[in-house]
Amino acid sequence: MELDDQQQRAEAWFRSLRDQLCAAFEALEDEGDGPAPAGRFAQSTWERPDPSGAPGGGGLMSVMKGRVFEKVGVNTSTVHGEFSPEFAKTIPGADVDPRFFATGISLVAHMANPHVPAVHMNTRFLVTTKRWFGGGADLNPALPVDGDTADFKAAFETTCDVHGADYWPRFSKWCDDYFWVPHRNRHRGVGGIFYDRLDGDWEADFAFTQDVGRTLLRTFPELVRRRMHQPFTQDERDAQLRYRGLYAEFNLVYDRGTTFGLKTGGNTEAILMSLPPLARWD
Amino acid sequence: MELDDQQQRAEAWFRSLRDQLCAAFEALEDEGDGPAPAGRFAQSTWERPDPSGAPGGGGLMSVMKGRVFEKVGVNTSTVHGEFSPEFAKTIPGADVDPRFFATGISLVAHMANPHVPAVHMNTRFLVTTKRWFGGGADLNPALPVDGDTADFKAAFETTCDVHGADYWPRFSKWCDDYFWVPHRNRHRGVGGIFYDRLDGDWEADFAFTQDVGRTLLRTFPELVRRRMHQPFTQDERDAQLRYRGLYAEFNLVYDRGTTFGLKTGGNTEAILMSLPPLARWD
Repeated sequence: MELDDQQQRAEAWFRSLRDQLCAAFEALEDEGDGPAPAGRFAQSTWERPDPSGAPGGGGLMSVMKGRVFEKVGVNTSTVHGEFSPEFAKTIPGADVDPRFFATGISLVAHMANPHVPAVHMNTRFLVTTKRWFGGGADLNPALPVDGDTADFKAAFETTCDVHGADYWPRFSKWCDDYFWVPHRNRHRGVGGIFYDRLDGDWEADFAFTQDVGRTLLRTFPELVRRRMHQPFTQDERDAQLRYRGLYAEFNLVYDRGTTFGLKTGGNTEAILMSLPPLARWD
Repeated sequence: MELDDQQQRAEAWFRSLRDQLCAAFEALEDEGDGPAPAGRFAQSTWERPDPSGAPGGGGLMSVMKGRVFEKVGVNTSTVHGEFSPEFAKTIPGADVDPRFFATGISLVAHMANPHVPAVHMNTRFLVTTKRWFGGGADLNPALPVDGDTADFKAAFETTCDVHGADYWPRFSKWCDDYFWVPHRNRHRGVGGIFYDRLDGDWEADFAFTQDVGRTLLRTFPELVRRRMHQPFTQDERDAQLRYRGLYAEFNLVYDRGTTFGLKTGGNTEAILMSLPPLARWD
């Protein structure tokens, strides 16, 4: 399909952000310890077969298994087609016309050193008869450190404050609400931001979405450098593997993108890229 | 609550089966290799707080982490109370009166040696204004061996044939249908039986349910003995850990007991006892 100016600009940004993230993470691999070689991203493309048989877009998965990043995936995708009648009812603007366009980026990093927090970021631009941005970024330490959490949140608070007076209180609470795991009576992660259906001034919303990506790109490598050389015990490693069990539980039981994607024929490999390389339940 | 004769007999059977299973599995631990000591079951009880505040029953978890059984759980529970109005609509006989009684046993074994199949068995007796049995048993090898699969199925086929001419074709197909994982385009496991709402002659249905337990008790230790001393490679171990990833995906995304239990305040520890001790996604 022919992309309009907004669609082209959003897609180009997500691709650019992906390349910047991958370059920054490979640089961290170069700074890593140990006999294992520095990891490098491997990329693979996938196509989305639209149920109608027409081209439906696709995506690019970038996955690295390294010595600092035990497993990190950075997925970009640009897809289009028609929502099923049932699903269309639940999506703004799709009740009138079921055609949609979506472009976005998704990042999940599971780290080798249990002192380094895992991180998740996702931003996207959706078009039906309406247009909006959504996304978020959240920190997922197995062994939380108050200062790390505070620095991560402060960075996103600053970014939010630049774009909207109520953004930080709204989007940080939305994050806390979204990542609550009822059956464990705790949160997945220590917070961050979560936003959706941001459909005010397009330029302003796009600028905010870009700044969310830039904030992650600036902040997360700092946290990695702070902890990646810190020694750890087997007990700390086991705590990390157990925390990853909780992470997998949240994604498979509650996460809307994951459960919806799996049950509606999405690209399984790209959807489940978020799952940890190794997890423990005992 | 006061149990009637059927309730008492069903509960007593599930307890007896639990004790027989635990004894048989501890005997296998004694036959195990290696410097690690033979595992022994640890038991812990839990109580179910009925939303009304009245006693709601509870259960006993028996968990063993050994050298043959990397992690095995045998849970028995006997619970009673009232279904929520929404849930009551979906349960036979509960639309008339939401009170229920349920007693059952659940077994999940994840094995240390990747050549030894994991196994799952669950049987239960439900009482609303109707009464019925349900359950099943299915084999879950990471590295399937045709002869092992055939022997496991043949044992359950024989058991089925004793109790009903159509049991094996119906219940083995039900198992295949139930354990299909759409997003992986494959089954969890290689088959077995699955049955529910068995509400014919009570004595006959109870006898069948007992025989399902006895068949597992007789058949599974034979398969374990056949493979538990077989050498394995790191690649085979990794294949096992990846298979366990699929196992966890099925339970967390599709399994009705797990997802319903987690979302309605069931005992998290008992429900998630089914999850593997260690799993890999890469």
